Amino acid sequence: MTIENVQQYMQSVGSQARRAGRQVSRATTGAKNQALLAMACAIEAGRERIQQENARDLEAGRQRGLSEALLDRLTLTDARIESMAEGLRQIAALADPVGEITDLSYRPSGIQVGRMRVPLGVIGIIYESRPNVTVDAAGLCLKAGNACILRGGSEAIHSNQVLASCIRAGLEQAGLPQTAVQVVETTDRAAVGELLKMDSFVDVIVPRGGKGLIERITAESKIPVIKHLDGICHVYIDDRADPDKAIAIAYNAKTQRFGVCNAMETLLVHKDIAAQVLPPLANKYREAGVELRGCDRTCQILADCQPATGEDWATEYLAPILAIRVVDDLDGAMDHIDRYGSAHTDAIVTEDYTRARRFLREVDSSSVMVNASTRFADGFEYGLGAEIGISTDKLHARGPVGLEGLTTQKFVVLGDGQIRT
Amino acid sequence: MTIENVQQYMQSVGSQARRAGRQVSRATTGAKNQALLAMACAIEAGRERIQQENARDLEAGRQRGLSEALLDRLTLTDARIESMAEGLRQIAALADPVGEITDLSYRPSGIQVGRMRVPLGVIGIIYESRPNVTVDAAGLCLKAGNACILRGGSEAIHSNQVLASCIRAGLEQAGLPQTAVQVVETTDRAAVGELLKMDSFVDVIVPRGGKGLIERITAESKIPVIKHLDGICHVYIDDRADPDKAIAIAYNAKTQRFGVCNAMETLLVHKDIAAQVLPPLANKYREAGVELRGCDRTCQILADCQPATGEDWATEYLAPILAIRVVDDLDGAMDHIDRYGSAHTDAIVTEDYTRARRFLREVDSSSVMVNASTRFADGFEYGLGAEIGISTDKLHARGPVGLEGLTTQKFVVLGDGQIRT
Repeated sequence: MTIENVQQYMQSVGSQARRAGRQVSRATTGAKNQALLAMACAIEAGRERIQQENARDLEAGRQRGLSEALLDRLTLTDARIESMAEGLRQIAALADPVGEITDLSYRPSGIQVGRMRVPLGVIGIIYESRPNVTVDAAGLCLKAGNACILRGGSEAIHSNQVLASCIRAGLEQAGLPQTAVQVVETTDRAAVGELLKMDSFVDVIVPRGGKGLIERITAESKIPVIKHLDGICHVYIDDRADPDKAIAIAYNAKTQRFGVCNAMETLLVHKDIAAQVLPPLANKYREAGVELRGCDRTCQILADCQPATGEDWATEYLAPILAIRVVDDLDGAMDHIDRYGSAHTDAIVTEDYTRARRFLREVDSSSVMVNASTRFADGFEYGLGAEIGISTDKLHARGPVGLEGLTTQKFVVLGDGQIRT
Repeated sequence: MTIENVQQYMQSVGSQARRAGRQVSRATTGAKNQALLAMACAIEAGRERIQQENARDLEAGRQRGLSEALLDRLTLTDARIESMAEGLRQIAALADPVGEITDLSYRPSGIQVGRMRVPLGVIGIIYESRPNVTVDAAGLCLKAGNACILRGGSEAIHSNQVLASCIRAGLEQAGLPQTAVQVVETTDRAAVGELLKMDSFVDVIVPRGGKGLIERITAESKIPVIKHLDGICHVYIDDRADPDKAIAIAYNAKTQRFGVCNAMETLLVHKDIAAQVLPPLANKYREAGVELRGCDRTCQILADCQPATGEDWATEYLAPILAIRVVDDLDGAMDHIDRYGSAHTDAIVTEDYTRARRFLREVDSSSVMVNASTRFADGFEYGLGAEIGISTDKLHARGPVGLEGLTTQKFVVLGDGQIRT
């Protein structure tokens, strides 16, 4: 679709989203769930049409010379279509956060004061090639009572538009406004610029994609951004660790998946246990094809280890590469994390109560773990049901962001005619 | 104090704050309380010195032609000094939010997941003439485990510096770093610009002052801002209101104090009760010196009422002026609030269960009330203990911001060696 005046088009999208946001903020839990389930059916029923449109994107992508990896992410297989529908059914099954009142208690004046969880309003989401984000984001935003404006990558425009039509069908069937989920219909890059300026229509921006995209959006946006930057995650093996747990966790945190933000990038090992755990770990890493880069003390223990440079400590590899550093003690480990970490997810392996307690309190990361793999830092594993992303910000939402992060709280006051004296 | 290189000075303040922030984030509740109580004693013991320095500010203010109202706000009387000390003691008596773990529960994988409340880090506060903000803000930030950088108005520089010395004395007595509370020592305006740029040292900015100041800071800041803009608060008197409660609340909300953000600025009245409640209310307002500006229907009931213009509905008077509008029903009232309100505090007076329930859910303001005066929207009245301000933002903190708004939460994960499969 060619849109002549992008600014005018985006303004119209924004004002319709604001209006729809008010309606879905008041929608019953039943209506929202009905819409989610109807969207799931529409996606399943539309499988052939979805794959036809997806094929157009894939063909265009091949002609533009997209890499095989990107083409793979873009492809909507039968299994991926089924998984989108299943995701919507899971969101329907989650408890509705909207309207929950907590901490309601009487004050000396006689008023009752509590907090009610309420939608944020309108959420703008800017993302790259995976079309499943269209469906996941639409479902989460709707369940949390928000309208959303979705801006996917140009390489997925046909896939996203056909998914949008399934989403609209679901909304219509439940009597909710179709404008509650709008997928931007133009690939013109100016649309993103307009979206980031519409602070009267959009309450929060969630970018999903590479670090470059996120930094650009954050710099440009006039609207608050819930963002995810680096995931430089650490595992620290204390000298009071159970060696078996330590080896299992350090291996899993690095190798269970390489290209994810909660994978370990640097392993820290107490000097008194390094000679015991590093050789067996190195054997396992070698079998998994992981390249090791270590500090001097590490290289003394592991003959085939490359020396690490200062840059290694500050790099999110997202690849089968691991930096290893031997430290003197817990404080040395925490200093390293404080200096080089990205405040995403960090774990200690220890059986020592006091050290576990210190690590939990003192490490300033969005997830802090004792005796567990960093790979658990995930909305589903945490019981949030699903996630719109993982926030590395401190304000509002920190760590995996589920339905709750897409809402806010207002104060409610119940009285019998109280006045202030 | 003359500072040659403001940028260098502010960088040094920032890096010291970051370091001190790490220390106070780990300080025990006991040490923080000891510091707060010692600050209170230092302020009481320093009364004469404080008043001498305050006199220098007052003298300079008179020479610069500050208004009587501003000079009054600047004056540190015995009672105000006592009240600052008392405020610190109250903060010491509040529960420590730092380290509180909530929602800790087992997941199917065997890990336990919960959330721990943690400090934000470093808080920058920019404020105008009242020197008591120096003490309140320092106390709240410290109790929440944060370091702070305070930038008061140039007209209060000597008062703020002497208060800073009392604060430092308290910190020192408790063995906490004196740089945990830094009051900027220069009146050079460039210091504010520098503060707003130091995103590696400062986690959040809280401006306190007029709307102009806050808009300027928000536009300029590279750091997230917790801000308070307009307070255009409404009371809606429903036709099913108890008239006595309605009159008491509408009178109190307007007249208990005029210049505050939670005072009512527009009164909305159902058409079927207007003729009953408006005349007695108008008599009371007249006695209190309140000027009334009404819609056509209001002016038909109240002979001496001035006609309101469209601008009146969108004005925060902060003065003895009230806009009054007669509406057809609850929806008419909520539409008016949605269109003209500032999402601060709005109240309904009704005995009707369903309407009360709708108003609570559907009005999108930071405080929504049934049968209570808008004047209750206040951290102390809500039981937060004290407030750093009232946020009209939606993200992170909304409504009165106490200790909790100066903290965030991280996820904590406790395991026995779990790995992800």
